[in-house]
Amino acid sequence: MYTVPAVITASRILKLLARSKYRQSTLTEIADHLAINKSTCLRVLRTLQQEELVRYNERTRMYMLGSYLIVLGNRAADFLDDVAIARVHLSNLAHETGHTAILAQKSGADKWICIAKEEPPVDFRITITIGQQFPIDGTSLGACLRMLDETVNFEQSQVLEKGYAVSMDGFRKGISSVAAPIIYKDQEVRYVLSLLAVTSSVSASGLQKLAERVKAEALRISEQISRLV
Amino acid sequence: MYTVPAVITASRILKLLARSKYRQSTLTEIADHLAINKSTCLRVLRTLQQEELVRYNERTRMYMLGSYLIVLGNRAADFLDDVAIARVHLSNLAHETGHTAILAQKSGADKWICIAKEEPPVDFRITITIGQQFPIDGTSLGACLRMLDETVNFEQSQVLEKGYAVSMDGFRKGISSVAAPIIYKDQEVRYVLSLLAVTSSVSASGLQKLAERVKAEALRISEQISRLV
Repeated sequence: MYTVPAVITASRILKLLARSKYRQSTLTEIADHLAINKSTCLRVLRTLQQEELVRYNERTRMYMLGSYLIVLGNRAADFLDDVAIARVHLSNLAHETGHTAILAQKSGADKWICIAKEEPPVDFRITITIGQQFPIDGTSLGACLRMLDETVNFEQSQVLEKGYAVSMDGFRKGISSVAAPIIYKDQEVRYVLSLLAVTSSVSASGLQKLAERVKAEALRISEQISRLV
Repeated sequence: MYTVPAVITASRILKLLARSKYRQSTLTEIADHLAINKSTCLRVLRTLQQEELVRYNERTRMYMLGSYLIVLGNRAADFLDDVAIARVHLSNLAHETGHTAILAQKSGADKWICIAKEEPPVDFRITITIGQQFPIDGTSLGACLRMLDETVNFEQSQVLEKGYAVSMDGFRKGISSVAAPIIYKDQEVRYVLSLLAVTSSVSASGLQKLAERVKAEALRISEQISRLV
């Protein structure tokens, strides 16, 4: 493998500090959680600190994400044309359906992560934060994301056949979701487009209609991003 | 020094790809610009790609920032309480003065970088992007940012005495700026708060008044962030 261990450690530290629970952590907490040598961890942390990718509070002895990440994140959102394209569609979807629209991607082996979202201007809606992580199991997004994996199973073939997945209350009790994969150049599932709805606000047939709507939008995004250079 | 070279290389690559000119670069362009060994550069790039901090386009052979940075950037903006506090004040400043308010920090030896901004709801205003970099020389922000350096010079003492800096057309012809430092615990200049105005829309005395306003707001932010744990 052509990877650099120290860079992987740096990345794992940043991803850990991006989780609410670990947003402020001591050296020991970070090293323990990532199961890495404390002195290696310290060296990587100090380097990240010097680069302003991590901030250290001397009084509390806690590390947290650094302000330069705000710059990198904004630049990535501006420069990644496929995300920019998807965001336009998220906005349309949220406004037209009245449900929260999200763009998610796979994170690690068994989680998905929200990288863009649009909430509709209605009183009752599902709120989600960019960066929020969820387990893959039991949700419509999960069913789509499992397409990323090599193992073909029943659910995956269902998604492949219909082009979308529906999950009533699977996500969390009271929350239903519909999702469709955004596929780059007919082969790579790059993102999943999804709508999150309050279950009591939609019927089973209403969910099917939402799913068809999300599928159509995901197809349009897939075509548009596949045309990018 | 307790730094890790590979992590510095990774950070420098990300910062390079965050610049408009280098948003899509080949391995050779990156290695040449950063004056690093090509095979080291490739290993770091592949690691960053695996971690989704960098994306690689196989067809064009270009690297660009990766989508996971969007997640990290959003989390940093949410978790860094001082940035969150400053953003509230930016919004007030922009709406009350009708000028573009920005929060900047030092980047490298001689640049500053915009990490948050708020534009007023008026027809003519200066637009700036988060992540945009500017040279320190000749601007009011530069004068404040030079306080970060160890060398005391005339301009620095002026900023220290008055608590703000004013630059008419110094930024770029037609653009004037006023700026004041945001100081953490009475010692560390953490950010610079600034207003960017179209020069023709403000008189010299008007600029002075804006400077006093920015100074007052920067002081309030300084006090608030210094009280954070």
